[in-house]
Amino acid sequence: MTAQSPPDADPQLPNGFRFAGVACGIKPSGKPDLSLIVAEQPLVAAAVYTRNQIVAAPVLLSRSRTPSATIRAVVANSGNANACTGKAGIADAEAMTAQVAELVGCDASDVLVMSTGVIGQPLPMKRIEQGIRDAHAALASGGAAFNAAAEAIRTTDVDRKTALRTVQCGEVSCRVAAMAKGAGMIAPNMATMLAVIVTDAPLLPATAQEILTDVADASFNRISVDGHTSTNDTLLLLSSGQGTPLSGASLQNLTASLTDASVALAKQIVADGEGAEHFFELHVAGAANDQDADQIASTVAASPLVKTAITGADPNWGRVVSAAGYSKATIEPDQVGLKILGVSIYEQGSPLPFDAQALSEQMKQTREVKLELTVGTGPGTATRWASDLTTAYVAFNAEYTT
Amino acid sequence: MTAQSPPDADPQLPNGFRFAGVACGIKPSGKPDLSLIVAEQPLVAAAVYTRNQIVAAPVLLSRSRTPSATIRAVVANSGNANACTGKAGIADAEAMTAQVAELVGCDASDVLVMSTGVIGQPLPMKRIEQGIRDAHAALASGGAAFNAAAEAIRTTDVDRKTALRTVQCGEVSCRVAAMAKGAGMIAPNMATMLAVIVTDAPLLPATAQEILTDVADASFNRISVDGHTSTNDTLLLLSSGQGTPLSGASLQNLTASLTDASVALAKQIVADGEGAEHFFELHVAGAANDQDADQIASTVAASPLVKTAITGADPNWGRVVSAAGYSKATIEPDQVGLKILGVSIYEQGSPLPFDAQALSEQMKQTREVKLELTVGTGPGTATRWASDLTTAYVAFNAEYTT
Repeated sequence: MTAQSPPDADPQLPNGFRFAGVACGIKPSGKPDLSLIVAEQPLVAAAVYTRNQIVAAPVLLSRSRTPSATIRAVVANSGNANACTGKAGIADAEAMTAQVAELVGCDASDVLVMSTGVIGQPLPMKRIEQGIRDAHAALASGGAAFNAAAEAIRTTDVDRKTALRTVQCGEVSCRVAAMAKGAGMIAPNMATMLAVIVTDAPLLPATAQEILTDVADASFNRISVDGHTSTNDTLLLLSSGQGTPLSGASLQNLTASLTDASVALAKQIVADGEGAEHFFELHVAGAANDQDADQIASTVAASPLVKTAITGADPNWGRVVSAAGYSKATIEPDQVGLKILGVSIYEQGSPLPFDAQALSEQMKQTREVKLELTVGTGPGTATRWASDLTTAYVAFNAEYTT
Repeated sequence: MTAQSPPDADPQLPNGFRFAGVACGIKPSGKPDLSLIVAEQPLVAAAVYTRNQIVAAPVLLSRSRTPSATIRAVVANSGNANACTGKAGIADAEAMTAQVAELVGCDASDVLVMSTGVIGQPLPMKRIEQGIRDAHAALASGGAAFNAAAEAIRTTDVDRKTALRTVQCGEVSCRVAAMAKGAGMIAPNMATMLAVIVTDAPLLPATAQEILTDVADASFNRISVDGHTSTNDTLLLLSSGQGTPLSGASLQNLTASLTDASVALAKQIVADGEGAEHFFELHVAGAANDQDADQIASTVAASPLVKTAITGADPNWGRVVSAAGYSKATIEPDQVGLKILGVSIYEQGSPLPFDAQALSEQMKQTREVKLELTVGTGPGTATRWASDLTTAYVAFNAEYTT
C-alpha cells in the first residue's frame, strides 16, 4: 500500500513525509477531523507532553513511545479528546495505531497518536477506522496535503496554523514544516494544544529530545491562554534526515529555526483566541535570573485585570506593576519601570506624566501590544505572549452547556 | 475634644469604640469616603496586610505600628489608595494619623491608617483634613455610626458589608463587630480589601496577632476574586477589652466567633462582585495534607473555565477535574471524584451517568453552587469561596480607561 513520494514534492517541505487530512464524521459539523503523517523510512521522533496529572489516553500511549528512532506514522483526530475515558480509551488509542501500522507496514509501537476535542466520551471507532483508510489513500507529499493535515487537527481555531522554514545545516539546506492547533482562548471542554514539526535535518533521538524541550520552553510554554493546562497537549518533532546527525553550529542553526517556527505558531495561537481582540507581548527584564523573570511574566500575563486593560486599550500601569508585585519572584519596587508601545509611563517606582488618550489610541490601533516591564537591576529576562480577555470569551465559555 | 460613650450605645456593639463615616469629596460622586474609629482607652491591635511586594503608603505606616497595646484610632479613606505615590504618599499617610492624634489626644504612632481606591494619584489632603474634622465631630457609639463607618470604606461594592456576633468568654459575654469592603470582582484600578473587626474581649497583643492570622487564613485568604492581590489589603483586629486576657476555651470561642464573622464578610465580598451572578463554595478532600488541598482549591477556583462553567450553570466536570490535575499538589487520578449540589457526577476517575439538564437547572436557580471535589485518599481538606466570571465583569474592567 505504501507509495513513493511523488515527484512534485513541495520544495518547502522536508523530504520523506506524506500527509493527509480528511473528514470522517467525528465532528457533527462534517469538517475535517482526521490527520495522518506517514514516512517511508524510520523517523527520529521527540515529544513533549502536558504536565497535567490527568492525562488523555493518546498522551499515555505516545509518551511511552518517544523518543524513538523508528517512528513511521502519526495519526491525529479532532472533535474528541479521548480523555478521562478509562481502559476503553487506551484500547481505542492502541487500535488507532494498530490500524495505521497495518496499512503502513510497521509495528504498532512505531505509530504515535494525538487527540483533541470533547472529553469523557468514547471515540466513534467505526468512523475513525473509515477515516484512517481514507486518509491513508489520500497521502501525498505536497503543500496541499500538508495543509489538509493541519486543517484536520483544528477545533475552534479560526485559522489553520502552519510555519515553514529553511535552515542552513553545514553544507546542506534543511526544511522545517510545523503545524499546530490551539483554540487561542480555549476549546469548550478543554484547552488542547497539538503541534507537529517535521524536518529533514538529520538528528539523533537524544539530541532531538533535548532541543525540543528547549524549543517548547522558548515558544509554546511562553503563551498565556487562560492558565488551564489541558490533558492532551502534545508537541512532536519528527526527523526524516539521513546522514551524519547535526551537531555544533548546524544544530544551533536548526534549533534557532525550530524555535522561530514554534514562536510563529505560538503567536498564531494567542492571536486566534475565541473572542480575542488583541494580544500582547510582555518582556520582563531586571529580575534576579531568567526563572524569576519568567515567573513574573507568567503572573502578569495571566492577570484578568491586565488582560482586560489590554482589551480596553487602557495604559493602566497600576494593574501591571501590582501583578508583578504579587508574583512569588522577588522584585525591587524602587526599580520597577514600564513601557507600553515604547512609551515610558512608570520609572524607578514612580509614575511618569504621559498622554494617556494618545497612548490608548495607539493601543486600539494595533493588534499586538508590546509591554516592557523592568522589575529590578538583575540580569534575568523573559518574554511571554498572551491574549486579552473579552466579553466574547466569557460568553462563549459560559454559553456552552454539557 | 474626646467625649464619653453615649448611654444609648448599641448592645450589639463592643464597648469602648466610637465610629463615624462622612463624605469629604475624595470621590467625585460625593458619596461617603472617610471613616474614623476612636477608642477612649488604649486598644490592643493586631493586623494582617497584603503580601504584595508593592505596598501602599498606609500599609507601610500601619504595618510598622502593629501589633500594639496602645492604639487609639483608625482613619480610613476610600476613593484613593495612596499607592505608588512615593515619599509624598508616606508623608500624607503620616499627616492623616498626626491630625487624628491631635484631635484624639494621643501619639501619632497610636493611630492606624487604611486607604482604598485609585492608585498613583496624590491624596487630596485639604479635603481629607476637613473630612477628619467632620468625622471626629460626628463620632458616636451606636449602630448608625458603625454602619456609617462601614459605608464610607466602600468603593465599587454594591452593599455595605458588616457582621455582628456575641460570644461567651467564660463568665462574660463579649461582642464582635466586623466591617469590610471589597469589590467582589475587583475595583477599576486595583482590588483592595479592607476589614476591621472590633471586640471588647480582652486580648494580649501577641495572642491577638496569632488568632488574627488564623482567622484570615480561614476566611479572607480563602476567597478567590481574580487572583490579583492588591497593594492595600488590610485586616485589623481591635480590642477594647479590660481585665484578664482570654485564654483556653474562652479564647477558642472568641476565635471561632471571629472566624465566623470573617467568613460571613468574605462570602459577602465574593457574592457582591461586579457582574457576579453566582458564587461557588468549593470543598476539596482526600489531598495528602491541608496545604495541598488548599493549593488544589485555589487553582480550581481561579480557573476562568471553571468560573465560566458556573456562570453558564454547566455541570462541566472536565473543567474542574483537569484544573485539579494542573495544580502543583499531587492528586491520585484514579481516586478523583466530584459532586455538584450533592449530585455525584464523577467518581474514582470516571464519569457517572447523570441528568445534566436537571442539574444545570438546579445550578441556575441557586446563587451559591456547592462543589465537592475528592482528589485522593489522604486526610487533607480545604474550602474556598469564589465568584463566577461574567461578561459584565469583563465589560466593566475593559471599559474603564485611565
